[in-house]
Amino acid sequence: MVAPIVSIVGKSKSGKTSLLEKLIPELKGRGYSVGVIKHDIHDYEIDIPGKDSYKIKKAGAETVIISSPKKISMVKDVSNDEIDLGLLAFKYLENVDLILTEGYKKQAFPKIEVIRSEVSKEPICSPKEVMAFICDFHMKSSRPVFETEDIKKVTDFIEDRFLMKRKKKRINLLVGGKRIPLKGFVQDFIVNTVKGMISSLRGVDKKKKIIIRIEEEK
Amino acid sequence: MVAPIVSIVGKSKSGKTSLLEKLIPELKGRGYSVGVIKHDIHDYEIDIPGKDSYKIKKAGAETVIISSPKKISMVKDVSNDEIDLGLLAFKYLENVDLILTEGYKKQAFPKIEVIRSEVSKEPICSPKEVMAFICDFHMKSSRPVFETEDIKKVTDFIEDRFLMKRKKKRINLLVGGKRIPLKGFVQDFIVNTVKGMISSLRGVDKKKKIIIRIEEEK
Repeated sequence: MVAPIVSIVGKSKSGKTSLLEKLIPELKGRGYSVGVIKHDIHDYEIDIPGKDSYKIKKAGAETVIISSPKKISMVKDVSNDEIDLGLLAFKYLENVDLILTEGYKKQAFPKIEVIRSEVSKEPICSPKEVMAFICDFHMKSSRPVFETEDIKKVTDFIEDRFLMKRKKKRINLLVGGKRIPLKGFVQDFIVNTVKGMISSLRGVDKKKKIIIRIEEEK
Repeated sequence: MVAPIVSIVGKSKSGKTSLLEKLIPELKGRGYSVGVIKHDIHDYEIDIPGKDSYKIKKAGAETVIISSPKKISMVKDVSNDEIDLGLLAFKYLENVDLILTEGYKKQAFPKIEVIRSEVSKEPICSPKEVMAFICDFHMKSSRPVFETEDIKKVTDFIEDRFLMKRKKKRINLLVGGKRIPLKGFVQDFIVNTVKGMISSLRGVDKKKKIIIRIEEEK
């Protein structure tokens, strides 16, 4: 299942990257893993570290991958029809809970617009096109408007709209045939404990569905 | 289908990258697309260009992708069990004809060892472990030994062992029920012309098998 996609849009220099820099740790702190797709309309020069990989790309390799114990980096030539946002998410972001994009105003995914008064007080999206605005001045809108610094409220909003259902789906606890409602924190606690407990067993794929049945004591 | 994988191995500073820098344009000139996987045993610091993506990764994103009209770059956190060479090839290099790796001596893919006398005249692999050696001095071996500068012969060797079958499979031309043998250049010419011809048609997936039947004139 591809994670929900939320696009952070706004004029150049409106603070999209700064917002992501604050939003990601907040989401991570709440137990979600986040992937980011940044839209770059210019054909930037690629310069991944280690001059070797740069040289290899320059020599004409279609794709160059550097694989190290903790990270993989990749640079790949593509033709225009391969850069569809949904396809990118499907191919490269299979393991995250939420995908945030920087840019992609024209794609049909839910959007939050960042507005910075220093740049312009005029949004680039109409209220119909976005779920919410984030800005550093008082603005009236038919959509929710968050203050730039109020990261917790923005995160609450994203969590409520996109992640609660996902979270609820993560675990079902039935005791004596009755479903026990679990709050976010308790869900995480149980999921992480069970995963941790079984992680050292042989042949266990942690990504698979886990079912534990414990029979009633008689 | 995952492309054949050939690993370029050798001691540090033996010239693996230099070899790749010469091999890739030669292969490209013969019509093959090449992907490279570089093994980095150190956990290198990632610093993809555009400070923004760097900041976003630092903020804790599990994966950061930059998508521009011609290139995609990605940096992804992985756990050790995800960095199997075959899996990397399967996931990220679906569209190339050949995968060359820099390093990966311990994996069970065909290997070519590069030896540079300035570093050491002793190979790190036994002849049993490699398909060929490439070196800058006269060395006797039960395996083929190529001169460092003789890129054409090295390419011929790789092409012969790994790419001819692939090439032959790319196109079958039957005229009046009789199969017409086609040399590499003519194959490429026909394949590229047909693909170019149909590329502007709606709903055409260029990656799919193409069959053209032209009935005999009566």
